[in-house]
Parts: sequence; structure tokens; C-alpha cells
Amino acid sequence: IPHPISFAEEHKCLNSELWHACAGPLVSLPAVGSRVVYFPQGHSEQVAASTNKEIESQIPNYPNLPPQLICQLHNVTMHADAETDEVYAQMTLQPLNPQELKDPYLPAELGTANKQPTNYFCKTLTASDTSTHGGFSVPRRAAEKVFPPLDFTMQPPAQELFAKDLHGNEWKFRHIFRGQPKRHLLTTGWSVFVSAKRLVAGDSVLFIWNDNNQLLLGIRRATRPQTVMPSSVLSSDSMHIGLLAAAAHAASTNSRFTIFYNPRASPCEFVIPLAKYVKAVYHTRISVGMRFRMLFETEESSVRRYMGTITGISDLDAVRWPNSHWRSVKVGWDESTAGERQPRVSLWEIEPLTTFPMYPTPFPLRLKRPWPTGLPSLHGMMDSWW
Amino acid sequence: IPHPISFAEEHKCLNSELWHACAGPLVSLPAVGSRVVYFPQGHSEQVAASTNKEIESQIPNYPNLPPQLICQLHNVTMHADAETDEVYAQMTLQPLNPQELKDPYLPAELGTANKQPTNYFCKTLTASDTSTHGGFSVPRRAAEKVFPPLDFTMQPPAQELFAKDLHGNEWKFRHIFRGQPKRHLLTTGWSVFVSAKRLVAGDSVLFIWNDNNQLLLGIRRATRPQTVMPSSVLSSDSMHIGLLAAAAHAASTNSRFTIFYNPRASPCEFVIPLAKYVKAVYHTRISVGMRFRMLFETEESSVRRYMGTITGISDLDAVRWPNSHWRSVKVGWDESTAGERQPRVSLWEIEPLTTFPMYPTPFPLRLKRPWPTGLPSLHGMMDSWW
Repeated sequence: IPHPISFAEEHKCLNSELWHACAGPLVSLPAVGSRVVYFPQGHSEQVAASTNKEIESQIPNYPNLPPQLICQLHNVTMHADAETDEVYAQMTLQPLNPQELKDPYLPAELGTANKQPTNYFCKTLTASDTSTHGGFSVPRRAAEKVFPPLDFTMQPPAQELFAKDLHGNEWKFRHIFRGQPKRHLLTTGWSVFVSAKRLVAGDSVLFIWNDNNQLLLGIRRATRPQTVMPSSVLSSDSMHIGLLAAAAHAASTNSRFTIFYNPRASPCEFVIPLAKYVKAVYHTRISVGMRFRMLFETEESSVRRYMGTITGISDLDAVRWPNSHWRSVKVGWDESTAGERQPRVSLWEIEPLTTFPMYPTPFPLRLKRPWPTGLPSLHGMMDSWW
Repeated sequence: IPHPISFAEEHKCLNSELWHACAGPLVSLPAVGSRVVYFPQGHSEQVAASTNKEIESQIPNYPNLPPQLICQLHNVTMHADAETDEVYAQMTLQPLNPQELKDPYLPAELGTANKQPTNYFCKTLTASDTSTHGGFSVPRRAAEKVFPPLDFTMQPPAQELFAKDLHGNEWKFRHIFRGQPKRHLLTTGWSVFVSAKRLVAGDSVLFIWNDNNQLLLGIRRATRPQTVMPSSVLSSDSMHIGLLAAAAHAASTNSRFTIFYNPRASPCEFVIPLAKYVKAVYHTRISVGMRFRMLFETEESSVRRYMGTITGISDLDAVRWPNSHWRSVKVGWDESTAGERQPRVSLWEIEPLTTFPMYPTPFPLRLKRPWPTGLPSLHGMMDSWW
């Protein structure tokens, strides 16, 4: 079984459209050159999710590390794991020094290739799609939208498709239109791909037809938390300590540090644009009892809104991370099927419905500090809380 | 292609014999309950080798962390990576407190299942062994030694073999004796195994026939440093910081910490028995010009000695790790083919040939402090140097 894996992708420029298609419709990377907020708690959650282990031992205190660390984002690069094709981004952050925090000058954003795909389809694989003898059955509308048209004068209509994966490796498939009823199938080449990528039913495959008339393909593995392996490189405790120690060191020396953001593994984005943070924390009034909407990704890579009610506002971890905005909002979800949804969210994830409160809150509205005239001192921002 | 991967091995007891066969003939794990010396520099080398990245950014100083940290070894467990079958050991260490360091009482060793295999063979796979249509050709002597005997009254002689891998998954192979000249082959089932484990020519497969009349099989991947992937969980810099911060925190609080030792990835053992350390550092005289022997693993899992000459004694990193015994010995190797061997080794890795110096050293012999009468203070040991 060939499995052409390229190990040079560290130095290659990944296709941004394909990367975003694999990352999902809700993921966007902050712009290079912009100011962002880094949340060590969110980073810890990603490590816990990736290693499938919570912190077990005592973690040292890092008094220099605030729960929200305002940084300059120097670099963002897109990557894909060579073994699993899992997409991740590498970001280089530098905590702002006190002078920069006071400085209202916002550097020009250098932009990032945050290109969402336009012409693509994503299909969750069925048992038949992944069986050794089977082919990949492509919904007719998806095939007509994304694949080059077949020559229907042929009997049966068929063509060779060449599709590039995230690593730039090309895969060849026979695309045929046949069967009773007639359907679009990928046959020869498909099971080699399934084997090489070790796909199972429930994983998703996506095809993009891009503006350069190239066919790209990516995969998204089903969330299988129990299969996430502990790394054999470093114990998860040392990883947790490592991310905190690295950020704390960078914070106290105003030096750069590097993080990996893994959108499929991480429960939430933990590096967000400063503007988004400021808007949510200082320009939005929320209170207990307030209704809100929040976007979630659904199967087959679309998006839908879920509704809920704010039930409380408090620190997620008052001992270690007092005055943190990370998941400071306790919520109840409207739909009973929403049981797996997080019981705590962060302010910038939700869209409060201020005009239609469901019921008058019995608690006094805790008003946000009004946004001061002129540009605020970010230092002052860091000190204020509710 | 089936690839039966069990994700429960975290909680299972791995077969010690198979683990050691995969780890290699030179690997032995310190006994549970014993005192060991942990070398942060060696741990860093393992992380650098595993992530294929040297430290890039500035690393904080950990003044509480000595270059050799004397610990109690509370636990050792054997593991294998579910994806790659790579063996590793998890160890729980607790730095000794000052009182324990002075205490000559050595706790009873609880022992560890350090069982080296006796009846086994290891074969490096050829291109033919890994081709899709081929089978696995087993050397006659190996097959006769390890596989159950064939019934030679059959034409051709053949049997089904069931072999368990490190995860406890059973693999079925058809074992047949045929061809011109006649040879032992594994046919049906072999290419499924090769695909599932993603073996390539140059990787090794080993079979053990154990005392319980079970057939076990393990794999050892060829050293392919360029294929070692950076983890997408944590940046390598944060990993380096994490291992140091975790050990430093444990050292200053005398609390437990957990490390992974990966014998195939790590250039050297970085947790060694205290007794071995004491013997090498305090009971062995070495000097520049002295000849020595050192064991190395060869292909097909045997062992041979290489000869060399000590060319210098100095700190590997005098700034960050002064007075460290880690790789403090500079050496020249006799064989020109030994060019890939480390130019620096640690005292406990070599066997000095004190009786036959190659030539009189022009440098004065630096004598070791004689071993004090009675049991030494380990604190004193930590302070002394040469």
C-alpha cells in the first residue's frame, strides 16, 4: 500500500483554502501583525483534549502570567500533521510591554490568507465508502458542482481525477457514472487512499475545485476522544507546565513564544483578535437571565445557531485564574439534545439578544463600565472586571 | 485493510519480554523503589530527537534544578504507542530531600520486570518482504528456533501461526515451507500486517516464542530522523521548557514528576541507577589519553564493542549546566566508520581500560576523590567535581 507522505510541509506553503475547509467553517485565524489576546486556560484545554488527560499533579504558580495576555501576533503558518492530516496553525506571539499596552497605535495588519473555500463539498464516509471492495459514492449535486464534467457520450461516462492533499501529494481516482440508479462513484484509487489515510466510517472527506482549476482533497477525522493518544514524548503534566512556563517566561521578558492551535482538537479558540475581545468584554452588556445565540458546526460542515440563557457569571477557576474572562459565562441550552454542549462559554463566543429578554431578571443588571471617551488604556482594561 | 488497534494499553500490563525485545539489547529499566539519577540534559536530548528540533528560543533558568537530580523511582510502566508501536516507559520520580540525601539507608528495590527475551529472532525487512504481493521470508534457523515445528509429512508443509503484538492484538499468518530452494515463508496475513503497521524495507520485525508457548511479535522501525514529526500539541520550545520546569518544580517541592523514556528515540538513557552513577563518577579513574570500550547495538539486534580514546573532559554546556557529568567525556573512535558515533559520552557508558593506556598522557592524571570510608553524604557528592 503506497502512502505518499511528504515531510517537507514545514517549509511549504499550505493551501489556505484547503486548510480552512479541513479546519471547519467557524475557524478563522487572526491577522498577522494584529494584536490578539492569548488565554493560557484555553491552551491548557487544548493540551488536555489532545493528550486526553487532565492535569494530575500540582502545577507551579506563575504570578507573572495573567489569564488574558495581550500580544502582538508576529506570524501565523498553516500546517497539517503528516501522519493524520490533522490541520493546525503555528503562531508566534509576543506579549506587549507596558508602554505598548498604553500605546493606542495599532499596527497595520499584514493580513493572513484566511481564505474560506467556495466551491467544495464535504461528505461523511459510510461503511460502504470505506469497505475494501467499495468505491466512494458522491452525491450527484456535489459531483456536478466540484468535479470536472463527465463526457456523457461515453459508455459508461468516466474520467481520471487527480486531487492534491494538504501535503501536496497527488491522488488519482477513477470517476465513473454508473449503477442502477446511476450514481457518481470514485473507484480505482479510492481504497488505496482510504487505506493510506486510515479512514473509517464517520470520517469526512472533502473536495475543493479552486480558482486555479485544481482539485484538492482533505480529510476530517470524526471526533474520537478515546482514540487520542497520549504523546510518548512528554508527560501531559509536563506539557501543561510547559505551556504555562513558556508563556510566563515570555510575559516577564516580553519575548516571543510559539504556540500550536489545533482547531479540530481544541474546544475553543484561545488566541482571539484584541478587537473582538474588547468588543465582547467592554462593549456588550450581559446579565443573568439574558438570552443568547451561539454558532456551532454541524455534520457535513455547515453551521447552525443554538439558543440558550445565561445562568451565571463567575470565574471558571477562582483560585488559579481569578478575574479571567475565559468561560466566565454559565449557560443553559434550549434544546435537550444540546446536552453535550459546554455549560460555560466565553463572552466573545455568544451573541446576546439584548432586545428580547425571555423574562425579567430577578438580579440587578450588572452594567459594564461604559467605554471611556478616547482610546482606553489597555492596562486599565486589564485591571477592570465587570 | 484492518488495523486492530487497542486503545486500552494504558491500563494493560505489556509483555515485558516483548517490550525489551523491541527496546533493544542494551536497554534496561531501573528497578522500582531504587534510587536513580535523572539528567535534564538527557531528557532535553530526547525531546530534541523526538520533535526533530533543537531549542530555538531563550529558555528560562531553573537555578533549583541541578544537572544530576537524585530521585526515588516510584513507578515504571511499559507502553507502546498505539499508532507506531514505538515502545516507551513511563517513570514516576521524586527528588530526594536533603534528609534523604544524607540518609545512607537504601530502600529495598521492588524490582521490575526487566525480562530480556531468550528465544526470539529479529529480521530487517527486505524490499521483497514488504512488497504487496510478497510474503515474509524467514531464515531457516530462525524459523526452526522460534516457530512451532511444521509437519513435514504434509505437501507442502504449512500451518497457521497466531502471534500477539504489543497491544495484545492477535495476527494470523500462514506459515509455509516451499520454493526452490525450499524456504520458510509467511504468506496469507503478512501483507495485511505490513499495511496495518505501515512497515517499509529497513524496518525490523521480531518474533518471540515465550515460556508460556505463546508467539509474540514486535516491530522496530528503522531510525528515520527526517520522518519524526513535530508534535502539533505543543511547540518544541514549550516542551523543552516544560520538562525543565516540571523537574525544577518537583526538585524545589520534593514532589513527584512523570517522565517518558523512549529507548528508540533517545540518544542515551537519562535515568540511570544511582549505584551505576556513583560507581562511574566516584570509583573510576579516567584521564585524557585513556583507552576505553563502549557497547553499541548493531543491526539485527546484536551488540558489539567499539574502542576509542578519551580526548578531553569538560562541560558539554558550561553556561547552563556547569559541573554536569552528562556527556562530559570527549572521545575519539578507532574506526573510521564510527564517524556517526557521538563525540561526547558519559562516564557510565564507557568501560575504561586502565591497565593498558595507549600512550602516556601528557596531562597530569586527574585523580578522583577517593571514596570516603563509610557511606558518603550524597550532598557532598553533589558538590564535588573531579
